[in-house]
Amino acid sequence: MHLSTKIYLTSAVLCSLHAAPFQARAQRIQPVRFSEVNITDQFWKPKQEKVATATLNACIIQTEEKSGRIRNFEKAARKQGEKHEGIYYDDSDVYKAIEAMAYSLKNRPDAALERKADEWIDKIAAAQLPDGYLNTYYTLTDLQQRWTDMERHEDYCAGHLMEAAVAYYNTTGKRKLLDVAIRFADHIDATFRVANRPWVSGHQEIELALMKLYHLTHEDRYLKLADWFLEQRGRGYGKGKIWDEWKDPKYCQDDVPVKQQKEITGHAVRAMYQYTGAADVASVTGDPGYMNAMTAVWEDVVYRNMYLTGGIGSSGHNEGFTDDYDLPNGAAYSETCASVGMVFWNQRMNALTGDAKYIDVLERSLYNGALDGLSLTGDRFFYGNPLSSIGNNARSAWFGTACCPSNIARLVASVGDYIYGKADGKIWVNLFVGSNTTFQVGKTAVPLQMSTDYPWNGSIRIKVTPPQKVKYALNVRIPGWAAGTPVPGGLYNFAAAGNGRVEVLLNGKSVNYQSDKGYAVIDRTWQNGDEIEVRLPMDVRQVKARAEVKADEGRIAIQRGPIVYCVEGADNAGEVWNLLVPANAAYTIQKSNLLDEPIVAIQAGLQVVKAAPDGLNIRTEPQTVTAIPYYTWANRGRGPMQVWLPVKIKNIRLAE
Amino acid sequence: MHLSTKIYLTSAVLCSLHAAPFQARAQRIQPVRFSEVNITDQFWKPKQEKVATATLNACIIQTEEKSGRIRNFEKAARKQGEKHEGIYYDDSDVYKAIEAMAYSLKNRPDAALERKADEWIDKIAAAQLPDGYLNTYYTLTDLQQRWTDMERHEDYCAGHLMEAAVAYYNTTGKRKLLDVAIRFADHIDATFRVANRPWVSGHQEIELALMKLYHLTHEDRYLKLADWFLEQRGRGYGKGKIWDEWKDPKYCQDDVPVKQQKEITGHAVRAMYQYTGAADVASVTGDPGYMNAMTAVWEDVVYRNMYLTGGIGSSGHNEGFTDDYDLPNGAAYSETCASVGMVFWNQRMNALTGDAKYIDVLERSLYNGALDGLSLTGDRFFYGNPLSSIGNNARSAWFGTACCPSNIARLVASVGDYIYGKADGKIWVNLFVGSNTTFQVGKTAVPLQMSTDYPWNGSIRIKVTPPQKVKYALNVRIPGWAAGTPVPGGLYNFAAAGNGRVEVLLNGKSVNYQSDKGYAVIDRTWQNGDEIEVRLPMDVRQVKARAEVKADEGRIAIQRGPIVYCVEGADNAGEVWNLLVPANAAYTIQKSNLLDEPIVAIQAGLQVVKAAPDGLNIRTEPQTVTAIPYYTWANRGRGPMQVWLPVKIKNIRLAE
Repeated sequence: MHLSTKIYLTSAVLCSLHAAPFQARAQRIQPVRFSEVNITDQFWKPKQEKVATATLNACIIQTEEKSGRIRNFEKAARKQGEKHEGIYYDDSDVYKAIEAMAYSLKNRPDAALERKADEWIDKIAAAQLPDGYLNTYYTLTDLQQRWTDMERHEDYCAGHLMEAAVAYYNTTGKRKLLDVAIRFADHIDATFRVANRPWVSGHQEIELALMKLYHLTHEDRYLKLADWFLEQRGRGYGKGKIWDEWKDPKYCQDDVPVKQQKEITGHAVRAMYQYTGAADVASVTGDPGYMNAMTAVWEDVVYRNMYLTGGIGSSGHNEGFTDDYDLPNGAAYSETCASVGMVFWNQRMNALTGDAKYIDVLERSLYNGALDGLSLTGDRFFYGNPLSSIGNNARSAWFGTACCPSNIARLVASVGDYIYGKADGKIWVNLFVGSNTTFQVGKTAVPLQMSTDYPWNGSIRIKVTPPQKVKYALNVRIPGWAAGTPVPGGLYNFAAAGNGRVEVLLNGKSVNYQSDKGYAVIDRTWQNGDEIEVRLPMDVRQVKARAEVKADEGRIAIQRGPIVYCVEGADNAGEVWNLLVPANAAYTIQKSNLLDEPIVAIQAGLQVVKAAPDGLNIRTEPQTVTAIPYYTWANRGRGPMQVWLPVKIKNIRLAE
Repeated sequence: MHLSTKIYLTSAVLCSLHAAPFQARAQRIQPVRFSEVNITDQFWKPKQEKVATATLNACIIQTEEKSGRIRNFEKAARKQGEKHEGIYYDDSDVYKAIEAMAYSLKNRPDAALERKADEWIDKIAAAQLPDGYLNTYYTLTDLQQRWTDMERHEDYCAGHLMEAAVAYYNTTGKRKLLDVAIRFADHIDATFRVANRPWVSGHQEIELALMKLYHLTHEDRYLKLADWFLEQRGRGYGKGKIWDEWKDPKYCQDDVPVKQQKEITGHAVRAMYQYTGAADVASVTGDPGYMNAMTAVWEDVVYRNMYLTGGIGSSGHNEGFTDDYDLPNGAAYSETCASVGMVFWNQRMNALTGDAKYIDVLERSLYNGALDGLSLTGDRFFYGNPLSSIGNNARSAWFGTACCPSNIARLVASVGDYIYGKADGKIWVNLFVGSNTTFQVGKTAVPLQMSTDYPWNGSIRIKVTPPQKVKYALNVRIPGWAAGTPVPGGLYNFAAAGNGRVEVLLNGKSVNYQSDKGYAVIDRTWQNGDEIEVRLPMDVRQVKARAEVKADEGRIAIQRGPIVYCVEGADNAGEVWNLLVPANAAYTIQKSNLLDEPIVAIQAGLQVVKAAPDGLNIRTEPQTVTAIPYYTWANRGRGPMQVWLPVKIKNIRLAE
């Protein structure tokens, strides 16, 4: 029997937990949850396997042995005045690891892993105070100081607790952590919203987490509290380090009320989580204020402040945004968590609008900026993801501030969340990932199977096997890059028109389709065995940046499908800063393996600028250069790397 | 009336404060204190003027307005539960600023500055607890936690308090801060040494500070406590972040007992302060254990782990030492404070041994690695001092961890400490700085006047005006670089033999002298008006690093006199990574001004490797390149810089 069921007033709200999934009123597309999608994909399934083993193992070892993260909960429960270890936001890493475990357990049951999660959850529950408060930093330092510095991540940690609790409940049906989360949510609601006490979250996260709790429990209070947190911003309520010491409310998007925000500013992850939460609220309330703000801000991100990799936040100084078009390559911060946040937010924007351009951005961030954060072995991580390196970058086993490892883990484990969408009489295919799922169309269950070797091959087959004929509109995303536009807004463009074109076939024959917001719409009556094949052109293409991006001036990048490529020293005699792209550069593709990762590598006919043997003269020679997917770099030790390669020589450096 | 005189038990020890300066038993040379030296130098006097105005003004504004450093003391005194601002070691910056003020006030009385110091001292004194404890971090967070984490810099802050107190007393005769420091020192002595409670300082500093207090008060307790602190190390007593979280006692030189240390490890500033303190103790006790350890460690630093600039600690990761010969240029940490620490320690080593090689290193660190930390305007600072830059380095107005600004300020203000030394019947001239002082030889006062345009000119004139004939040995340092050896131990060597030679003249005529440990010894009977002139060869010389230093392979650096040169974009069309040093490179010197700094610039006949106008071809052309003193770089905005220039082309990088 759960202790919590006796004492938690809020348990009553859980009566509807097992009701049909709630559909947000204002959104056009309801994403299909990863738990309803069986992934069979050759690209993603091995990654999920590595996350389930190597990545989660790293999270567990780091959380239990190499840091005080779990010990803090044990100490807080013992109440013997022991010292807090680590940083005040470390609780969140434990929660995020549990969330990743929950997703992984759904994909791949593992009794030992579930026992580990249960063990942690027991420790977390034991550390909760009778009034619902739960934060080991303040419990172990000075509880009198709780809720005094809005920067100290108490609500951020609470948000990650809620996300973990919802995920773990969804996978296991176990409600112990959920009860803890509900209790803390209720404490926060009573302390702030009900008491009318201002509170600006110093690191947004709780808003989107409350929305998950709301969708699970259908308890209006959490919707109201999420909206309340958003509405607190930009009104001068901030207190604590960001406001009083740094004097920089912009850093956490608190300079302007959310609904009046027009530009992207400050810390990138905070911004992404904020807009994800705002989109979640808007999807239920239909509030146009959030949507108007988000539309303007999204354009500011994507049109002027995004790397070709979908990474954002170019500066390490504020882990965030600077001036428009300020996108240095070597100094790029482009935090892994910010790319994860781009995936979150763009999914919501797509669901709200039905527009595929958001998935174009999501796909770019997912396959490039985010995935780069995880080593091919699954146990090494990048916090920042630069677009060039002189050889001084290496993946780490962990970080003092360890937000990224569990963030990429939970994203990979739940990548099934981003593949499909649905609405009455409509099915959306957003990402091309080998998988199967079943849609309910009216009273008919429509099993759907997607098979593909994407992102290496452009053929995607989608077969349906309904037991009877059924009419619905299948919306298959035609990626912007396939249609000739690498990113919405023209920050990046292909250097020349491509040769290939998109084809859509029904049962092997070309089919006419309507185009709607970036989707090919095939609205017809379907029968068992009908198969759509989409063929996307997989030319190797050169990309140019707008002239405003000074860092990419006189340079091109290589993209094939959704994958951004780079050149790395390991494939190219140790040096890649000596390459020049001639006007007639020719590219061929080559199926290959990078360690155990099957990839398509690109052989490029470039030029190399090199010293003569005497060390006194320089000559230029043709050279066949190997380019690899950006997300696979830095898996073979330190070495130089470049995404953007020069077509003209600008500055010459004689390096060490 | 001073409050302190009534309640401080320790005031009795001050009875001997005005006695003759204490002479350490075991040291050969007694440095002449800066307060006895009147600096007239064209190089240093303007720098002291800038420190007195711009640098100290920056310290004051940052300490009072832009950070909570002074507010923390006010809050601690008020005892109203207000919050601590900033970092737990911030108190030390206030103390170090007062120390710099004290030195500056001695050189250049300034009533307003003295009032400011008095005002701060009142606030500091008010924040001291009745038991003598003084640390605003713990007073404002949780006093129960004091003395629990050895890394938390409580003793470090106490040390800087003591140094400031001794300095301020020496300049002003005011003892309020001294009483505070004595009281805290006594609290620490009682809490640890007397109570036999282990304590490993997480950041050494208190040892050398206690020795200053000991020399002022002649109170044996402080000598014993300094020695006790040193003896605590390497015995497994460490508790706190360094030991329990990082598990890295090496970081603070706590892996081996001090007297058994043979290699330099860990955090560079901690190491320098430790050995300075050890030398101070050894100079009194004559303990050979410290001397043996320091000799081995010093060779490990200077023979294998020092930059050409005298900077040390190549890695930003641990702000310290890595492997032997690992001396990357662009990534060099080479913290300003570590170079300041090199000055401290090498002075002590020279005093203990009478060997000029320590001053050779001191001079190198002072004129290059340390001075580089201070902008020519006096109000911008470098924390790290790299030996090359691709243009991403800029001096800062301040730092979150702000140890460097006040450290370089106190060094420049007290540079008079490093010029002269004395012993019975002997006078040492260590640095060449225009100045005058008076030595007591027996019963005769010997006024001495040094005039020079060093480091730009190699002529140094030393005139004495004793009222009567007097016999003593004048020891004038002949720098290693002048004798043909840029650094002791051969880590760096001149590329070719020089043309010039050292000359020593007495009253205009060449004189024979004995050489002893790097000094020219002229032991004779001197009379009023006798003048020694030393002429040091000021050839521009190329320096090579040992082959083991991979970062400098195939490269040379330029040195003239004690000054290491660099090339910077501002003088060379914005780019310096495209330069190549031909075998016949010719150098000429040019008197010049860099902003308001008179310097000798060097015109070098080099080659430049540049792109043809079409951006597709590369050509090499002769180019006259301007080299400037390393310490003056980065005063004209961001731009590329190099100390080590290639003689052979190794890696070519086509940069953005």
